[in-house]
Amino acid sequence: QEDGSPDEPIFPIEKAGLLKNINITFDMRMDFQAYTFRGGDNYYNGLQFENGFTALGISAKINEKLNFRFRNRFNKDADVQSLDRLGSNIELAYIDLELSKKLDLYAGKMTAFYGGYEYEFIARDILEYNDIYGNALAFVTGAGITWQAFENHKFGMQVLNSRTALYEDLYGDIVAENIQEPDWPVTFVANWRGSFFDGKLETIYSFSNSTEVKDRGTTFFTLGNKYQNKNLTLMYDFHYSYEQIDTKGIVTSTLNDGSIAENVTYIENWLRAEYKFSPKFQGLLTLMTSSAYDNAKAGNDFIRTSYGIIPTVYYIPFKDLNVKFYFAYIGRYYDYSDYAIDVLGASSYNKNEVRLGFIAPLLLL
Amino acid sequence: QEDGSPDEPIFPIEKAGLLKNINITFDMRMDFQAYTFRGGDNYYNGLQFENGFTALGISAKINEKLNFRFRNRFNKDADVQSLDRLGSNIELAYIDLELSKKLDLYAGKMTAFYGGYEYEFIARDILEYNDIYGNALAFVTGAGITWQAFENHKFGMQVLNSRTALYEDLYGDIVAENIQEPDWPVTFVANWRGSFFDGKLETIYSFSNSTEVKDRGTTFFTLGNKYQNKNLTLMYDFHYSYEQIDTKGIVTSTLNDGSIAENVTYIENWLRAEYKFSPKFQGLLTLMTSSAYDNAKAGNDFIRTSYGIIPTVYYIPFKDLNVKFYFAYIGRYYDYSDYAIDVLGASSYNKNEVRLGFIAPLLLL
Amino acid sequence: QEDGSPDEPIFPIEKAGLLKNINITFDMRMDFQAYTFRGGDNYYNGLQFENGFTALGISAKINEKLNFRFRNRFNKDADVQSLDRLGSNIELAYIDLELSKKLDLYAGKMTAFYGGYEYEFIARDILEYNDIYGNALAFVTGAGITWQAFENHKFGMQVLNSRTALYEDLYGDIVAENIQEPDWPVTFVANWRGSFFDGKLETIYSFSNSTEVKDRGTTFFTLGNKYQNKNLTLMYDFHYSYEQIDTKGIVTSTLNDGSIAENVTYIENWLRAEYKFSPKFQGLLTLMTSSAYDNAKAGNDFIRTSYGIIPTVYYIPFKDLNVKFYFAYIGRYYDYSDYAIDVLGASSYNKNEVRLGFIAPLLLL
Repeated sequence: QEDGSPDEPIFPIEKAGLLKNINITFDMRMDFQAYTFRGGDNYYNGLQFENGFTALGISAKINEKLNFRFRNRFNKDADVQSLDRLGSNIELAYIDLELSKKLDLYAGKMTAFYGGYEYEFIARDILEYNDIYGNALAFVTGAGITWQAFENHKFGMQVLNSRTALYEDLYGDIVAENIQEPDWPVTFVANWRGSFFDGKLETIYSFSNSTEVKDRGTTFFTLGNKYQNKNLTLMYDFHYSYEQIDTKGIVTSTLNDGSIAENVTYIENWLRAEYKFSPKFQGLLTLMTSSAYDNAKAGNDFIRTSYGIIPTVYYIPFKDLNVKFYFAYIGRYYDYSDYAIDVLGASSYNKNEVRLGFIAPLLLL
Repeated sequence: QEDGSPDEPIFPIEKAGLLKNINITFDMRMDFQAYTFRGGDNYYNGLQFENGFTALGISAKINEKLNFRFRNRFNKDADVQSLDRLGSNIELAYIDLELSKKLDLYAGKMTAFYGGYEYEFIARDILEYNDIYGNALAFVTGAGITWQAFENHKFGMQVLNSRTALYEDLYGDIVAENIQEPDWPVTFVANWRGSFFDGKLETIYSFSNSTEVKDRGTTFFTLGNKYQNKNLTLMYDFHYSYEQIDTKGIVTSTLNDGSIAENVTYIENWLRAEYKFSPKFQGLLTLMTSSAYDNAKAGNDFIRTSYGIIPTVYYIPFKDLNVKFYFAYIGRYYDYSDYAIDVLGASSYNKNEVRLGFIAPLLLL
Repeated sequence: QEDGSPDEPIFPIEKAGLLKNINITFDMRMDFQAYTFRGGDNYYNGLQFENGFTALGISAKINEKLNFRFRNRFNKDADVQSLDRLGSNIELAYIDLELSKKLDLYAGKMTAFYGGYEYEFIARDILEYNDIYGNALAFVTGAGITWQAFENHKFGMQVLNSRTALYEDLYGDIVAENIQEPDWPVTFVANWRGSFFDGKLETIYSFSNSTEVKDRGTTFFTLGNKYQNKNLTLMYDFHYSYEQIDTKGIVTSTLNDGSIAENVTYIENWLRAEYKFSPKFQGLLTLMTSSAYDNAKAGNDFIRTSYGIIPTVYYIPFKDLNVKFYFAYIGRYYDYSDYAIDVLGASSYNKNEVRLGFIAPLLLL
């Protein structure tokens, strides 16, 4: 089995030229954690080392018009998914074709064009996600375009699979009249990236609509806003997700009756402030809330609000490398409503954690 | 744990020299599919994006005599197989030692030296396989030699494991008198690659014999023929596989009684025509049939014939890159015999599909 | 999702410079095996090809102070482990920060600093491990330091997770009063690497103490000694492991009553001699014994001694490459005590094996 078609470029390119056009990166976040769970049935302490983010990345400029990007994240399982035929570990495997100076076409497994600055960071830089992105499917297969309509405004549109696994693998066992196989499990995403006042204010807003099972899906919009001056960066995101069947699982797991929750709503606020005290020291503060509601069509039962607070200090020892050592506190409080406690038997709980670790984006080649 | 033995070459080689001798490739096929299943119990429509082929390859010339090749295909599961200790995702991991100008020794996990031009393509370039290669084990561990006996004639021989998993993992639960553990689950393969009329006519013929369980195995031969002129390539393969226990699973799944079919025969024809209309456009047509028979020793019951037709158009936008966009129709018709329908309860069905996608053999380094 | 933080070095480094500072390696051991099991219920012959070691390695000098090392071993499963969030296939993913000329800090998934020369080899070079290292967890996540205290004496200390999986995944189903979840499943390791008589005599001694479940763990020490002259290398290791709950599984599997053995002891001797007959030929002999005892607190019941003998010949065809072809006999004899045979129903058995294969440490870049 030799290749039936030439794999080599028809005009051989010098290796030195190739070398300029490839980046091999290795990204790590690793830490020591000490945490306590309290509340309800939770009474648990733990100490451990953990590899939070461990990924090999390759990006390459293949020719003038064609770019390629790949990321294998070793903290995610490699089981090949039944719908898109890649494991969760392959986060990125796509080509980017420059159709014109302002128009790019993307195809392959890629990041959904959702908005907000929490999502804009790669997972390496987020110690704890809020409830929506902590449970969302960020890497899916499909095609998209971006259009740099004006110097400061860029628009993106995508058509994507809405899942990585086939219906029968996710919902095959659930007998429910209105949870049936759709012809097309599809997500449409549109976003807008704006820049104002010489980049001091930036926005990433998105709107998306997906079909998860027949005639039922999710409507999700995000409003991400960022203010940046010399030493301070402020980010504020608002998220709203209305889900005809619950894809985040928070309401479903509160119901805990073997069915999937329907017509649920998640509403979130997320704020992150970063301040450079000096070239070697940075202070960060993340605050977040996420509220979950059930039965949007009949009563809109409030289920819970979760709160998060993450003060962090970065120590950046090298001038020429963006390697950071960090110390953080992560507080998470899950407050259930009287309805959830009395009727569904839920109970409020909290997690308190400190972490000491490092974040290393390493450029190998 | 530092290495007990030096990993570095004893005479250090300049990195620039190394760079010339390594190729890192990334191969992709990704598409949008729309398909219908009809016939028997099948009534199903689907639309989806799929990653058909996603693989990282490394090949290297280590020194004058030693070459190395590796391929990790991310669309296949990584579970380590019990017999050869690699996952299905590791398709290639072998060395090629040039014993003389005409004689090469191969050892490791490699492609079996089966013949035919359908098999000669890597899976990236085949949208749908015929029944035998769609169910055959192509990547196995063993050793082989190739001998360039004459300028236009090359012979290959291999001794390979006949499976990747141990007997008990594949057959442990099947109680049958004649399905017992063999001492050596081995495949012997021999092939001949011929070239005639200045390469206008080429052949890849192979013969192989394997032991799958004790005293029972498969006899498989292939006759692959290829005619090529300036713009037209014509390939015709004939395949015959006689299997004392069914390793392709088609007759077994038709019997559907929990046992493995025995003494089955598969006979196939495969034709592919490729025509270059212009440097940017190519037209392809694949036609194929595969017939399956049960009980070769007593009656040779005809089970089914499957048919395939795959007209395809390639659009190749770049002069310097072999990246193709393609549009294809894939028709597959599975016609069961009266015997299979009346006695075994099978029913004929068909699949109609259109695909729009791209094939990208990317040379990264 | 573009990276929120710059991945590129702040002062761009020329790629040619990067190239000098990265090593990409591929390590292989692959062989043909013929073996027999005899004794007790064992009566089994087998012949097969096997990929014993197949791994991609990357090591890089990121800047003056920071080094990085990664190894993906494809013969191990990729299922992400619940405690440290990496699969067993990711053996190494750590940074090495040079705090001073004599002090290094390590953090990430790495080799535990256990001693002995059997452990000092990478698995590529060990055809068969003795009982402790054949069942030990060598690659775990944590942090460590090494201190080159004197020119010939180096000390190392580590704090590591004592497992890769969470308590409930390993012990969740076992109901036993004294096997409870600990706050911190931790291992402390200290080692000493000494060099005497111009490096003719070297030592690697280690002491470690781990907590596996609440208040119960393992005390393990190793004494590794190596004598080397021009053509001869002699290594002798002594290992002693006292395990309040059995983490090697040998006594547990002999008891075979669904519980985990407690207060077991393993005592081992391991000897390896290597002799260079000529630049192309080397002879090796490994001898080993391992004895297992149960109930250290009450009677110290002797369970079994296993013996191993591995004469090996290396043929090294290339001057400039450390690629070896080898032929080896591996004899393993498992002699159970009268107590194990009479009371526990064990029976002695042996395995005889010959192997013909190659060991290839390939420097790709």
